Amino acid sequence: MAGESNASLLNDHKEKHFTAGEIVRDIIIGVSDGLTVPFALAAGLSGANATSAVIVTAGVAEIAAGAISMGLGGYLAAKSEADHYMRELKREQDEIIAVPDTEAAEVAEILSEYGIQPHEYSPVVNALRKNPQAWLDFMMKFELGLEKPDPKRAMQSAMTIAIAYIVGGIVPLFPYMLISNADRAVIASVIVTLIALLIFGYGKGHFTGSKPFWSALQTTFIGAIASAAAFAMAKLVQG
Amino acid sequence: MAGESNASLLNDHKEKHFTAGEIVRDIIIGVSDGLTVPFALAAGLSGANATSAVIVTAGVAEIAAGAISMGLGGYLAAKSEADHYMRELKREQDEIIAVPDTEAAEVAEILSEYGIQPHEYSPVVNALRKNPQAWLDFMMKFELGLEKPDPKRAMQSAMTIAIAYIVGGIVPLFPYMLISNADRAVIASVIVTLIALLIFGYGKGHFTGSKPFWSALQTTFIGAIASAAAFAMAKLVQG
Repeated sequence: MAGESNASLLNDHKEKHFTAGEIVRDIIIGVSDGLTVPFALAAGLSGANATSAVIVTAGVAEIAAGAISMGLGGYLAAKSEADHYMRELKREQDEIIAVPDTEAAEVAEILSEYGIQPHEYSPVVNALRKNPQAWLDFMMKFELGLEKPDPKRAMQSAMTIAIAYIVGGIVPLFPYMLISNADRAVIASVIVTLIALLIFGYGKGHFTGSKPFWSALQTTFIGAIASAAAFAMAKLVQG
Repeated sequence: MAGESNASLLNDHKEKHFTAGEIVRDIIIGVSDGLTVPFALAAGLSGANATSAVIVTAGVAEIAAGAISMGLGGYLAAKSEADHYMRELKREQDEIIAVPDTEAAEVAEILSEYGIQPHEYSPVVNALRKNPQAWLDFMMKFELGLEKPDPKRAMQSAMTIAIAYIVGGIVPLFPYMLISNADRAVIASVIVTLIALLIFGYGKGHFTGSKPFWSALQTTFIGAIASAAAFAMAKLVQG
């Protein structure tokens, strides 16, 4: 039916749009932390008089650990959400078969929250009762608010975040790889990271619909606060 | 009306349930990374023959930076989502006033995706048209899938994640604070962190509805992989 093919075209369009948005979101998550934490760690260690060699060692170890923690952690979280969805799907399916009147009452309850009267929503409830697949989709979306997860997304999300973290983390660290005097390397690192944070923050604002200029400032501010805290803690420990 | 008060009780219940679930989720996010990254960083550095003093310095700097990056980053992300919601709310409001026929057609489209026929959904569409507030809520939820964000949640979420990260990070690090020989401290750190990862992973599984035993293994596995990678990268850099 024309209605069905239009609906599936719309769904395809929504899904592509949804995935592109999720990839951007994952890049933002990875680069945000990747630019900030290794930068702050390196700056903090330089303040505690570590050599560039030690700083690069710590930085590279942290980037590896961070990328894996975020990537693998994100993967397992997405898998866990997918399992949760399948469990809830099965439960709704069972309920539709076993206690259809209860399920129909739930549909009525959902619609009545919008001030819709029984004589107005009954035809909808009855239409759903006659179409178990559509009824199931309706309950998943409108009662539970769950979207069917794309099985490819878990791996895609994990790889995107991990790679974004690594790319973000290399930026503040490479000055220490090139300049063996940590007191001079930190100056280069601050300049390079400041520029990167401003550009990234601006891009983030553009993609998320916030004011890009404001977003650039906020992102740079977080980097500054994080490195100040790391610097202070490192000095504290060094005594 | 009885229907309205039942609906608002239900909403209150859902909101409390929603918030408790979100706090648990934030604790999981913070502790997951906090237990993993500082542990891996410390283990990696000990493999590169750093002293306990250097490891504690790096570890504490990383925890400070990580807590701020995750906490402040999470706060700004939540604020950005809240701003996004308000912008979309305003736009839907304007559309309902300016182009009600287009909005009514969108409601029809949403319902027709569930196989509901025009003569079945028209009473619902008309009921919504007569109740602009309910119509707006319906569009926000069913067209855009957006929930009204709680303004307190942004700060609450940020603090929860940051504190969870700090608590998680101290666990693998304190052996190095007590044992000045890094080669011995790392053994204690591995044991303490392994136990913490197993317990935390088990609890995480319990709260998220996954199999706790499997979750304990997965969580510990991530910690092991992250520290192996950090160890390898640190050795690589040390040459």
